[in-house]
Amino acid sequence: MSEPAPAARASLLPLDRSVGYQIRMTHRLIQRALQARIEEHGVTLGMWYFLRILWDQDGLTQSELSRIVGTMEPTTLSAVASMEKAGLVCRARHSGDRRKIHVNLTEKGRALQATLLPVAADVLGAAARGLTGREIDLLLELLHAMQENLRHDVGAE
Amino acid sequence: MSEPAPAARASLLPLDRSVGYQIRMTHRLIQRALQARIEEHGVTLGMWYFLRILWDQDGLTQSELSRIVGTMEPTTLSAVASMEKAGLVCRARHSGDRRKIHVNLTEKGRALQATLLPVAADVLGAAARGLTGREIDLLLELLHAMQENLRHDVGAE
Repeated sequence: MSEPAPAARASLLPLDRSVGYQIRMTHRLIQRALQARIEEHGVTLGMWYFLRILWDQDGLTQSELSRIVGTMEPTTLSAVASMEKAGLVCRARHSGDRRKIHVNLTEKGRALQATLLPVAADVLGAAARGLTGREIDLLLELLHAMQENLRHDVGAE
Repeated sequence: MSEPAPAARASLLPLDRSVGYQIRMTHRLIQRALQARIEEHGVTLGMWYFLRILWDQDGLTQSELSRIVGTMEPTTLSAVASMEKAGLVCRARHSGDRRKIHVNLTEKGRALQATLLPVAADVLGAAARGLTGREIDLLLELLHAMQENLRHDVGAE
C-alpha cells in the first residue's frame, strides 16, 4: 500500500470526528444486524422500511410512502412490487383519483408486525447497550435538531 | 386512506423514539444535501464515500475499500469503475500478489479533495447549526459506543 501524503493525513474533516461519516457507519451496522435477523422471515431491508411505515399507517399511497421513507419513486415501486409478490401488501387505485395508488397490508403483512417489531427492538437494544435513558433521549434530540436544520437547508435551495 | 388499527398506532417502537429510524433519516438528509452540492463537480454519492477514504489512504485495495466503506464487493467494483471512467482513479495489480487490485487517485482525483472537503464540511456545519461543541462530542461518543456494540453483536453471530 502506498503511504498517504502528509496533507491527506491531516485532513480537514477526519473520519472519526465527522458526524456524517459516523452516522453513516452506525446506520450501516444497524442495517447489517437487522438484515441478519429479518431475512429468515422472508423480509429484506428494502421491504423493511416500508413495512415499518405501513404498520403504523396502512393504506398510504405510493407517493406518500416515498416521501415518508425518503426513497425515490422507482425504489418505492420496486419495493412495493416485491412486497406484493411476497403476499405482504396489495395495491388499489383510489376510487376518486385513479392516479393515486394505495398500498394496503394483507393479513400476512400485518401479522409480521408482531414478529418483527420485537426483533428490531432487540437489535436496537443491543446497539444501545450501556447507554442510559438520558443518553438515548439526548441522542434523539440531537438527531432531530440536525434533521430540522437539514430540512430547512435542503428546502431553501 | 384507511384508518390505522389502534394496536398499530401504539406500536412497540414508535418512529420518533426509534434510534434506528432517526439515524436513518438523518443519514438520508445528509446524503441529499451532500449530493446536491457535489454533483456539480461531477461526483456522485456512490463515488463520494470511496474518494473520502482514498484521500486519507491512497492505494488501498478494492477489498480494503469494501471493508472500510462498508459496501459489498460488487458495489465497490462498480463505484471504482465509474471513478476510473471519470478519470479520478486508476487501478493497478499488486506486483507480488496479482489477485490484489490497488486503487490509486489520479491527479484529478486528488485535486478534488481541496474542493470537496470544504463542501462536505459546510453541509455538516449547516446540519449541526445550533449544537454546542460539547453536544457534538457527545453525539460522536454515543455513535461510537453503538458501533462498538453492533460490531460485537454482528461479529458474535
